[in-house]
Amino acid sequence: MSQITDSMTEVMQYIEDHKETYLEWLRDMARQPSVAAQNRGMKEMAEMVARYFQEQLGVPIESYPTDGHPVLYAHLGSPFDGAKTLAFYNHYDIQPEDPVELWESPPFAAEERNGKIYARGISDNKANLVARLAAVHAYLQVKKKLPLNLKFFIEGEEEIGSVHLPQFTERHADLLKADGMIWEFGGQTEDGQPEVFLGVKGMLYVELVAYGANSDLHSSVAAVIENPAWRLVWALATLKNEQEKVLIDGFYDRVIPPTDDEKELLEEMPYNEQRILDRLELDGFLLDLEGAALKEKLLFQPTCTICGIHSGYTGEGSKTVLPSEASVKLDFRLVKDQDPHEILQLLRDHLNRHGFSDLEIRVFSAQKAARTDLHHPLVKAVVRSAQTSWGQTPAILLTSPGTGPMYTLAEQFGIAAVSVGVDYPGSNAHAPNENVVIDNFVRGIKHMAALFEEFAAK
Amino acid sequence: MSQITDSMTEVMQYIEDHKETYLEWLRDMARQPSVAAQNRGMKEMAEMVARYFQEQLGVPIESYPTDGHPVLYAHLGSPFDGAKTLAFYNHYDIQPEDPVELWESPPFAAEERNGKIYARGISDNKANLVARLAAVHAYLQVKKKLPLNLKFFIEGEEEIGSVHLPQFTERHADLLKADGMIWEFGGQTEDGQPEVFLGVKGMLYVELVAYGANSDLHSSVAAVIENPAWRLVWALATLKNEQEKVLIDGFYDRVIPPTDDEKELLEEMPYNEQRILDRLELDGFLLDLEGAALKEKLLFQPTCTICGIHSGYTGEGSKTVLPSEASVKLDFRLVKDQDPHEILQLLRDHLNRHGFSDLEIRVFSAQKAARTDLHHPLVKAVVRSAQTSWGQTPAILLTSPGTGPMYTLAEQFGIAAVSVGVDYPGSNAHAPNENVVIDNFVRGIKHMAALFEEFAAK
Repeated sequence: MSQITDSMTEVMQYIEDHKETYLEWLRDMARQPSVAAQNRGMKEMAEMVARYFQEQLGVPIESYPTDGHPVLYAHLGSPFDGAKTLAFYNHYDIQPEDPVELWESPPFAAEERNGKIYARGISDNKANLVARLAAVHAYLQVKKKLPLNLKFFIEGEEEIGSVHLPQFTERHADLLKADGMIWEFGGQTEDGQPEVFLGVKGMLYVELVAYGANSDLHSSVAAVIENPAWRLVWALATLKNEQEKVLIDGFYDRVIPPTDDEKELLEEMPYNEQRILDRLELDGFLLDLEGAALKEKLLFQPTCTICGIHSGYTGEGSKTVLPSEASVKLDFRLVKDQDPHEILQLLRDHLNRHGFSDLEIRVFSAQKAARTDLHHPLVKAVVRSAQTSWGQTPAILLTSPGTGPMYTLAEQFGIAAVSVGVDYPGSNAHAPNENVVIDNFVRGIKHMAALFEEFAAK
Repeated sequence: MSQITDSMTEVMQYIEDHKETYLEWLRDMARQPSVAAQNRGMKEMAEMVARYFQEQLGVPIESYPTDGHPVLYAHLGSPFDGAKTLAFYNHYDIQPEDPVELWESPPFAAEERNGKIYARGISDNKANLVARLAAVHAYLQVKKKLPLNLKFFIEGEEEIGSVHLPQFTERHADLLKADGMIWEFGGQTEDGQPEVFLGVKGMLYVELVAYGANSDLHSSVAAVIENPAWRLVWALATLKNEQEKVLIDGFYDRVIPPTDDEKELLEEMPYNEQRILDRLELDGFLLDLEGAALKEKLLFQPTCTICGIHSGYTGEGSKTVLPSEASVKLDFRLVKDQDPHEILQLLRDHLNRHGFSDLEIRVFSAQKAARTDLHHPLVKAVVRSAQTSWGQTPAILLTSPGTGPMYTLAEQFGIAAVSVGVDYPGSNAHAPNENVVIDNFVRGIKHMAALFEEFAAK
């Protein structure tokens, strides 16, 4: 153990000495737009990732085509007999940057201010990708040999629901063998304690579209011509009530309340309510929830969220128009055992039963939730290496309230996955002024380098 | 009477001979954007109108400033003793042109196709403005003297609710004397019969805004953070039900059902339901209404219409975001005796009572309805001159389902107003591919020229 610590000191020092280089890698990647939803910069970003692996780690990226953006894969072998295999899951796509007018610096300038770097996609998840790449680089520079085999799975459609990832996993199941997988995201609590997530929620993302006349009309005829915006509003009002209860028959059938053990972990889970409210300038949480009930809602309850709604004239001033079309983007965050395809059918049935059979449903993504056992060796290795690198025992969360293809890529292949990363509560992921704290990024590199030895030694 | 007819033949011939010139005036004006809602091209358009009055009619435009866009006024005197005064109401502003991608030619190209000219604002109401200008021009060219005094009131904010017109009418009430006023719009039924409108509906146009956290957030936190889009949907669902009944207490208190006479006129009112449905590619009208009930709903019932709604991400693909703000633009078309300011108070009370006191209400316009007596001499003169110019007896409609400041500019000063124009059911006012039929435009010029003598002779 002392030997590990000694040799790791050298790696840590190397990271400290070369942090400006790794920061430049990060800014380079953050300057490249890669918006999967708009198919913007995706090819360029994939090429940039491949270049870094080749030039900095000396391994080629294998690009596996899908009907969407390709999945990138890289493998680094260990010379030690019986070495374990650790996999990483990241993505090279990012969210759209709008509303761009709310950014304080251009979304792809990667501007540094107050010890942070601001760019769309930097926290979700380019900083984590680069931190892992940098950890391998530093480790190899100092120690020349890896103590375990590493696999990188880097997909290009995480932000649009990993639509084509199942094509990859079905065709290349042989690649999906590992003793553990580090997932793409993670950060700190409001009080600065690092977080370790043992799972993700599932997701059904749909767009509902209502149609009226074949053209927008002068709103004076709204007295006698159907308005698709009203139909959409009425349909939505049947989906969820003001007590936040989803009204779709059967929606909660597979939702399991937390066990006593899980309730205990929820009690212990850090969640600084006042800091969160202060940061968001809110008076309270939904339904005035607090304490354990609030945390249970966040982690153990599914959601139905309007992510976007649009119809008619939404520019400046007034326009008296009867819209010809109305649409809403809805995400359902699902908990373990809820099946997105089943929920989709329940939604369709619900709309039909309430007189909205004319509403079109477009499906954007469907993913199952995933959960890793608290007692898996990877969890301990992640916790111990966090203690080394962050100087703190991390908080363990039973699941993230967020979503990802953890079931598709890991759980269905029996691979335990744990999610950690370099975010913090002010990262603004998916929002304007997304950023990472430079110190966190450096700690994230150290955490991953320490994990190599911790997990190899288990 | 035969003298009038003889001399009018010469005016009609002049219009026929010079229609290409008048068409060029129209295209010139249609090429100039003048979007009041966006303050785009308004000054240029006002200057263009002034230039036409000066150069073609030899009279100056007087520009009366308001806190918004100025009201333009022109006066042409008649040399005959005791000559009547006929006023015109038009506007030089137009609706925004979006959604621009649905236009088949650029909205300001004024392209001619199949006997029509396409441009934003051409039917509403530049063609009517130019037709009136051309009628005066032709009449003066042929007959040198006008048989009545003419007044033109041309405002710049009709499409944004004539917000500052009351400033003009309060300061310059002395100008608002006339024996009758021709209003800005009108057209033909589905069967080509010209229409004469004896009134307009009132209007309350508001925007409701709901606020959430101080920034868009990752939608995973929607489990515990309030979503303003949902709040807006729930608030809207309390305003109107699926039977199209507005649920605001007191909303219908001043709504008067049609009298027996009015019911008879409704029965006679042409309304080719099948053609309308075919044109709009619809299976039926709202609530499957038809016949007299449909027409009564259109003319005698107030509305509550979603003209636009927006929140969150509405671009391509999916984005998992919890929006920080949601807004809806609503227009209430009001019937005679409903007071928009009273309705606004009822709306505020309603929202407060239903737990939505946090929703902001922004008021864009508030106008009362207006109605002219069927037996006023102006109505007869408009009908007779329509018979001359269109070769048909027009249909008389008790009111338009549309709105305008007829109360503000005419009814409150005891001026009877009648609305006629050169639209047709395919004009696409307020919609993409707005257009006028060139033949209608020419007939509209003739109608106005004929009206000068008909009304002068009464």
